[in-house]
Amino acid sequence: MTTKSRLSICTTCTSSSAKGATDPRHGRELFDKMVESCAKQDMPFDIRAVECLTNCKSGCSVALSGPGKWGYVYGNLDTGMIDDLCELGRRYAGTNDGIVPWRERPESLRRNVIARIPPLD
Amino acid sequence: MTTKSRLSICTTCTSSSAKGATDPRHGRELFDKMVESCAKQDMPFDIRAVECLTNCKSGCSVALSGPGKWGYVYGNLDTGMIDDLCELGRRYAGTNDGIVPWRERPESLRRNVIARIPPLD
Repeated sequence: MTTKSRLSICTTCTSSSAKGATDPRHGRELFDKMVESCAKQDMPFDIRAVECLTNCKSGCSVALSGPGKWGYVYGNLDTGMIDDLCELGRRYAGTNDGIVPWRERPESLRRNVIARIPPLD
Repeated sequence: MTTKSRLSICTTCTSSSAKGATDPRHGRELFDKMVESCAKQDMPFDIRAVECLTNCKSGCSVALSGPGKWGYVYGNLDTGMIDDLCELGRRYAGTNDGIVPWRERPESLRRNVIARIPPLD
């Protein structure tokens, strides 16, 4: 099992602010741009494409997870938030339990948590 | 780390169908009744109380998780769904990956998934 934290990006998402699905999907665009942006940096987390985080009404969606950490789903995201997503991922990776205090989250993402799941112990 | 699946119940939840918070909270009532109901049976999953699954608009909320499995958050739950939650927990515990096919979920819970998080591998 990986010891790194992970940012999983739903590539089948349609943006909640869009009128309908696009080709490629908004989630795929978000994934591609995140990979491109993070390739230039040494990120402390992995990025993975996933199909559906069951948050379809509030896309685009990503999940942050890591060994022994609370897992978080964020929604209502778009490609304008990539720098803030990178920063959130860095901060998440730097925690032991996955809990990034509210005030330490990038401001654009503070109201975007959809749900969280406790770690197994 | 536990090898058992786990049902985490948010005990600070207010029911989304209620006009306001109660004392005890609806989530605490759900937890107490689940523990009482499951004590009579040999359940293949653990039940834990947790504080906040960040799904406050759609309480009551629970999370299903297990080693190597997709984690799921369910919302808009109430104490009338306890038998179905037990059945869902049993079916979840019986999977290798946490994915209970939609048609195999208790009907009352099929529209209650809020989000899911992929397993680490």
